Amino acid sequence: LTEAEMTDSYAVGVDLGGTTVRVALVDRAGQIRHEAAYSSNVERGPEPVIEDMARWVGEVTAAANVTREQLIGIGIGSPGPLSPSRGVVHKAANLPDWIDIPLSRSMQERTGLPTIMDNDANLAAYGEFWAGAGKDVDNMVMLTLGTGIGAGVVIKGELLHGHFENAGELGHWIVVPNGRRCSCGQRGCLEAYASAGNVARRVVEAIRDGETSILSGLVQKGTPFGSRLVVQAVHDGDPLAARIWDEACYYLAIACVNIQHAYNPTRIVMAGGMSKAGDLLTQLVQKHFELLAWNLYDDFPEIRIAVLGDDAGVIGAAGWAWKAEEEGRWNAEPTC
Amino acid sequence: LTEAEMTDSYAVGVDLGGTTVRVALVDRAGQIRHEAAYSSNVERGPEPVIEDMARWVGEVTAAANVTREQLIGIGIGSPGPLSPSRGVVHKAANLPDWIDIPLSRSMQERTGLPTIMDNDANLAAYGEFWAGAGKDVDNMVMLTLGTGIGAGVVIKGELLHGHFENAGELGHWIVVPNGRRCSCGQRGCLEAYASAGNVARRVVEAIRDGETSILSGLVQKGTPFGSRLVVQAVHDGDPLAARIWDEACYYLAIACVNIQHAYNPTRIVMAGGMSKAGDLLTQLVQKHFELLAWNLYDDFPEIRIAVLGDDAGVIGAAGWAWKAEEEGRWNAEPTC
Repeated sequence: LTEAEMTDSYAVGVDLGGTTVRVALVDRAGQIRHEAAYSSNVERGPEPVIEDMARWVGEVTAAANVTREQLIGIGIGSPGPLSPSRGVVHKAANLPDWIDIPLSRSMQERTGLPTIMDNDANLAAYGEFWAGAGKDVDNMVMLTLGTGIGAGVVIKGELLHGHFENAGELGHWIVVPNGRRCSCGQRGCLEAYASAGNVARRVVEAIRDGETSILSGLVQKGTPFGSRLVVQAVHDGDPLAARIWDEACYYLAIACVNIQHAYNPTRIVMAGGMSKAGDLLTQLVQKHFELLAWNLYDDFPEIRIAVLGDDAGVIGAAGWAWKAEEEGRWNAEPTC
Repeated sequence: LTEAEMTDSYAVGVDLGGTTVRVALVDRAGQIRHEAAYSSNVERGPEPVIEDMARWVGEVTAAANVTREQLIGIGIGSPGPLSPSRGVVHKAANLPDWIDIPLSRSMQERTGLPTIMDNDANLAAYGEFWAGAGKDVDNMVMLTLGTGIGAGVVIKGELLHGHFENAGELGHWIVVPNGRRCSCGQRGCLEAYASAGNVARRVVEAIRDGETSILSGLVQKGTPFGSRLVVQAVHDGDPLAARIWDEACYYLAIACVNIQHAYNPTRIVMAGGMSKAGDLLTQLVQKHFELLAWNLYDDFPEIRIAVLGDDAGVIGAAGWAWKAEEEGRWNAEPTC
């Protein structure tokens, strides 16, 4: 494409989730031209879900008054484990019956557009790197604090994959030897202490063990709640919520120290449900980080909150497609 | 250089240590043609040490009957923190008065040869990757278990540096929250539990705290000992030595799990004094690793012992120089 054609072109970013699929047309500057979100209905199995995705690429394109010729290709963020280089989803906890599904090829055949895919947490991180909280830095790690903890590692503009293409699973770093059981089979994972889901779960467990809290009533009634209500309870001065929130920030600070020594990034970005706490998250993580930090070298990353919200996934997926287009490597091996 | 000239050429590998400096001529296949080791005498400050290094490049070349024209350049492994891209040693615990020393430029001016430098642990890892325990894989992490724990991370043939050029300081990963004090100022570092120096120190501390061991006599006499005698005591059935050795292997296994999730390498290589224990190290680390490991994906690295011994540093330094020559980037920024 010529430079003029590029400026009037779009990549399609798709964020495939267990509940919602998002599809967006994104220009070369990282701006969304048009976006749609619809229910995944994953219980139907892979084929109808992929068929829907292909159809929605058409819908969004039509709704935006964009022609097929203006599309450079598709990027898809999917739950994993998966193989970006082969375009295959090996399996995915929230997508029933997705076993070794050739997602890239299926989308390419249905749409006629070159397609690239990657782990959803990786592409959300790439989105913030390309057009959000990391757009002015060269190396960035993002932690997405949701039901679990997803992560993505960007090194000099490249997503890190590693030999088995599953690098950057930092939610499963062991931070407490012989600690809490994690759904992955390990003990003491970062995720078991510091994901939004587990922060709420730990409050419930503590109340069931007899501790008192302004959230006790909800627990007695069996009303489910997430990290948002825990954050509210911290703001309302609840000691139990404050203690468990502080512990989560302490373990996140240990993760930040370990990220510093692992990758030496310029910036660490916090995203996902828990990041909506804003300063209550970053200031506590920063405080613990400074108490934990070494004194050998001044190589400390900045700790920031993500800025793209739920759009990070589609923007990153589209940005990764733009990168494939510009570097002519739609079908190439990842470089790191 | 033509292919014919390359096959009769050598890179100079230099391994600058606080006690010993090693200098070797290494061919393009990673074979040492000639090698020398001499006392660093670092108490003289940086200038005489650099002068000696330049002189020994000449000595080794002459002793090997190699001409100046057959040398493609010099690679130097140095203690850090340092900047490979600028060729500057910021400071180094074992090198008195080395503050922001432009080591690459100094050597280049003295020898007339292009010079590249990097962290000593990085280049030892690159040596094993290029010509040793990792020569058949694409991604490798090496832990050097000595006085402290050094590490190097190779991703698709590139050493990982990160923004501050100090990535891969895995000896300072926090593995025990609020754990043992480390010399770096942190608490609970891997190094504080699992370096050769700290394994011996922990045995001494336990004996002073009243535990009995076949090493008690040495401790009472104040005779210093290292991990070699601890390993001997394990082989001789000493329960205290066995417990502390097992704990070290347990923390190394946690580090291996965290390396798996950080970088997804094909192989993890153990080097340094403790690696001389061989199977007693790898089999225990492997046993703990399998007990700790997750069940989500079969992305487990192999755990191996290094094979190049004390030559890893000079071979890696020379290999890094060969890479600079072949990629025409003696003065380029590191790519990852």
